[in-house]
Amino acid sequence: MRSSQITIKDIAKKLKISASTVSRALKNHQSISEKTKKEVHELAKKLKYKPNTIALSLRNSRSKTLGVIVPEMVHHFFSEVIAGIDDTAFKAGYHIMINQSNDNYLREVRSTEALLAARVDGVLCSLAKETRQNDHFINLQDNGIPIVFFDRICKNLETDRIIVDDRKGAFLATEHLILNGCKRIAHFSAPQNLAIGRDRFIGYLEALEKYGIPYEKELVVQCDQHEQALITTHSLLSMKNRPDGIFAVNDATAAGAMISIKNKGLSIPKDVAVIGFSDGIISKIIEPNLSSIEQHGYEMGCKAAEVLIDRLEGNIEDYTPQTYEIKTELIIRASSLKNDAK
Amino acid sequence: MRSSQITIKDIAKKLKISASTVSRALKNHQSISEKTKKEVHELAKKLKYKPNTIALSLRNSRSKTLGVIVPEMVHHFFSEVIAGIDDTAFKAGYHIMINQSNDNYLREVRSTEALLAARVDGVLCSLAKETRQNDHFINLQDNGIPIVFFDRICKNLETDRIIVDDRKGAFLATEHLILNGCKRIAHFSAPQNLAIGRDRFIGYLEALEKYGIPYEKELVVQCDQHEQALITTHSLLSMKNRPDGIFAVNDATAAGAMISIKNKGLSIPKDVAVIGFSDGIISKIIEPNLSSIEQHGYEMGCKAAEVLIDRLEGNIEDYTPQTYEIKTELIIRASSLKNDAK
Repeated sequence: MRSSQITIKDIAKKLKISASTVSRALKNHQSISEKTKKEVHELAKKLKYKPNTIALSLRNSRSKTLGVIVPEMVHHFFSEVIAGIDDTAFKAGYHIMINQSNDNYLREVRSTEALLAARVDGVLCSLAKETRQNDHFINLQDNGIPIVFFDRICKNLETDRIIVDDRKGAFLATEHLILNGCKRIAHFSAPQNLAIGRDRFIGYLEALEKYGIPYEKELVVQCDQHEQALITTHSLLSMKNRPDGIFAVNDATAAGAMISIKNKGLSIPKDVAVIGFSDGIISKIIEPNLSSIEQHGYEMGCKAAEVLIDRLEGNIEDYTPQTYEIKTELIIRASSLKNDAK
Repeated sequence: MRSSQITIKDIAKKLKISASTVSRALKNHQSISEKTKKEVHELAKKLKYKPNTIALSLRNSRSKTLGVIVPEMVHHFFSEVIAGIDDTAFKAGYHIMINQSNDNYLREVRSTEALLAARVDGVLCSLAKETRQNDHFINLQDNGIPIVFFDRICKNLETDRIIVDDRKGAFLATEHLILNGCKRIAHFSAPQNLAIGRDRFIGYLEALEKYGIPYEKELVVQCDQHEQALITTHSLLSMKNRPDGIFAVNDATAAGAMISIKNKGLSIPKDVAVIGFSDGIISKIIEPNLSSIEQHGYEMGCKAAEVLIDRLEGNIEDYTPQTYEIKTELIIRASSLKNDAK
């Protein structure tokens, strides 16, 4: 056996570890233990392993730029994710270029074309609401550009994915209202063709079911915007048997509901308890302060960038796509503490 | 004279209009009157004008992508500007790629390099706080990539510029507090090495001067963040002769001041009137609602993109850089109406 034929896979096989671990160990990557690094380096030396210089030179010709495609930037959650991506990429020596699809399929296609022309090394993407096809992503992959999807993932493509446990978050929010004495909980939902719309609605239903509260269709309204919530809440509160709790799909909607409740002369949380989702600055400024579900968007961005960079810098040969879940967290503030209210 | 030698400049000279007008008229641009279009087309025909096909082909090989460099995206003003750029670019068939400098000089340099590699047609930029050199921008210009600066402009380069009248906005804010009966107005300022820090401070001073109110050094504090404002306001209100008005350099800082004033058991605007700057969603959610200065970031973005695209599609030969000013506007809400307060 000639030493030039020795590959990372041979070393991996002999040491009974993955090729990707060997690759990282040879690069002295921080994620690999000193023990493994030593074993790998010793075996590589013994077998006279030499890196494939053509592959290396190809790798070194990379642009060290990552493309990011988000539905919208002016959005608390995505801006948090971008901050996480940016910080992680910067630390690893990568620059990021951000593209906005505005939830439009053709603009998403155009973004992938622009990123291809810009010779990015990899792409991080959260899918547009409208997208039903994935040829534009396959085109990236065919050009050797790996993709990591986050939040709104593409189910028909083999890629790494970072997801939020939206359903669990919605369950926690609804359960929290129930434990605080709410008996009739309204849900302001996002459109049901969106995963976040469906998942948060399911989480809401699961909490009702667990505590034996019957589902009432008229308490669930599609409403995911601030201005819209002012009107929707007004009509809900005019019901003969009005809700005593509201779980809104996002904070801006929850804030709209709160303004409307106060305008009606009702008290929060005594008459109506309110909880939002996403935990932005609004929740700390509105009075009473708004309970919410923290989605850890920054952590999601860090994880997405980390996974992509690991893939770019590690050994791609024996790569298997993975799905990572980012946990949500219940943040309790005054708007939902009915039991404590006077 | 051979017809192939006839240029846009010749037509312009004969009609006593600018070459850029001729260029647009030949393209039937909407900004040109029908009368001018007719005159230009008739003269072009008469003189047997033929477009320079090499230049045209060069122009057609453009990527139809614009690069944007902003100090930070998670910022109400810049996100508004980006929305304006994006809408205008999209309507004109351009895609945008956004780069974030994080107010760091080296990251700004890297952004220009990445945009050059990405073969963008033009660049829209708001300068990083740290930047003192401009070689990276000259490099873009040398590569035939025009630049339009907005908000934080580069004073040493000949480019189009879009600026906000920050000084006037600050004057209006301070004058409004004075006209509402404030006699001791504190100013929470941004760092004075930033144009917005200086300009808003000068606007504040000019208003004091106009109404014969003496400048008191201890009433001006460098404080441009929400959390910081909570503490700063607390100490200001402990002064023997406490301020009866606060003009904060941005809304998040104003909101921090308001929370602190309320925590102290004082009333807004009766005891202390407050006004912010930038008019984001915070101003409509905090109670009482916050008066502020609308900067028209969206309009700034539209103008910046329009100017760049006009330059890309118009005649560059006789191009003269221009500076455009976007007006600020006083938005009055309850937080500053001391005269109306009970």
